[in-house]
Amino acid sequence: MKIEVYGTQNSVTEKDLKDKTVIVVDVLRATSTIITALENGCKEVIPVAEIDEAVSITRTIDNDTFLLGGERNAVKIEGFHLSNSPLEYSQEVVKGRTVVITTTNGTRAIKKAGNGARTYIGGFRNASAVGAKAAEEGDDLVIICAGTGGKFSTDDILTAGAIISKLLELRTEAIQIDDLGQVCKFLYEYHKDDLWEALKDTHHCKVLMQNGFEEDIRFCFSLDATDVVPFYRDGVIRKL
Amino acid sequence: MKIEVYGTQNSVTEKDLKDKTVIVVDVLRATSTIITALENGCKEVIPVAEIDEAVSITRTIDNDTFLLGGERNAVKIEGFHLSNSPLEYSQEVVKGRTVVITTTNGTRAIKKAGNGARTYIGGFRNASAVGAKAAEEGDDLVIICAGTGGKFSTDDILTAGAIISKLLELRTEAIQIDDLGQVCKFLYEYHKDDLWEALKDTHHCKVLMQNGFEEDIRFCFSLDATDVVPFYRDGVIRKL
Repeated sequence: MKIEVYGTQNSVTEKDLKDKTVIVVDVLRATSTIITALENGCKEVIPVAEIDEAVSITRTIDNDTFLLGGERNAVKIEGFHLSNSPLEYSQEVVKGRTVVITTTNGTRAIKKAGNGARTYIGGFRNASAVGAKAAEEGDDLVIICAGTGGKFSTDDILTAGAIISKLLELRTEAIQIDDLGQVCKFLYEYHKDDLWEALKDTHHCKVLMQNGFEEDIRFCFSLDATDVVPFYRDGVIRKL
Repeated sequence: MKIEVYGTQNSVTEKDLKDKTVIVVDVLRATSTIITALENGCKEVIPVAEIDEAVSITRTIDNDTFLLGGERNAVKIEGFHLSNSPLEYSQEVVKGRTVVITTTNGTRAIKKAGNGARTYIGGFRNASAVGAKAAEEGDDLVIICAGTGGKFSTDDILTAGAIISKLLELRTEAIQIDDLGQVCKFLYEYHKDDLWEALKDTHHCKVLMQNGFEEDIRFCFSLDATDVVPFYRDGVIRKL
């Protein structure tokens, strides 16, 4: 088994994903929001790259059953029901609904990740659950960090580290881990007892805090809060 | 002052470099070799991306004064005088000569870096010298890590960390460092007392060791062995 990590979605090609298990991480906040929506009984999440595409898709869905969610530059999109804050995706709001979501980095990364053998959605909130799932599959694993604004984002890197750390607990054979995967694992294990302290001064956290989203960040950084493993296939994300 | 680090040259655009001081790092082995050649009295180094281009350029230079150097996949190019091993670029061999060099990752990164306000060549061997030079300039700094085979390579990351660490010693104002820059600095400072131990199991080191280049690696990892700061302008690298 091999494990590889990409620090941004731009650096991954289709070829890198062939026959691999793929986990997409955009912990602040797209993948945390998707995990939470499914945890709270949402029927399915449809990730789309563009705003126009999101609106078009909803024309084919019964009006009462869908919600439009997402952000551009951390701000809710005009005319959408929900932003990209996981706290808005409560049971009362999402239960039984289809959520169509578009975000700056995360949904693009998910669509690209669809080129693997199978694609899961990861965050700190389900790190052990998704790590265990990848360990059970046993195929080579690629973790795609969405990054922030096309750049390396430490929040995603530590999340990848948490997933790798769990996976390694469960597999006893020698596993080949690429350089970035080793760095993810090292940084996570060094900082795991205080993720907040390690991450609060990183770029994406600072931008979100300036916009009043500290509560969102603390929610997204809750390690192993759920066993939900979202699974992406044929354009739709559902609970495994 | 801002500091940004790119983990591979593919992730940098021309726009990212405008008006910046740029330092290129390909510590195993292109930038270490260039530093060593200039330290040993080589007149100038001309980095080119392609083998054909290297051969064409030498047709315009007096036969007695140039050397063709470089590698593809860590192996010397057929018909070239030198490989990409810094140990071959001794004073006896390079003094007064022009070296035309092409390597898999490093020379491409250098050519791209030419889009900044000024471009320096960095490695562990001149980390403090090049860090001090960037501190003296005072402009925003971009460090481009060449990476290995298009991927994040921890050897380059720790080198970037060594350069940043030196720069921060010399500037007292608040400096904004991006996420990857912070990770480089943290990893370097954590591992600086035993770079060999930290790096010997990384991908690029293992490939080079399998090919018999342990001595090269130890040479490239010699921290602050020289004050030479190579400067790239109009297609040519010279000593500052």
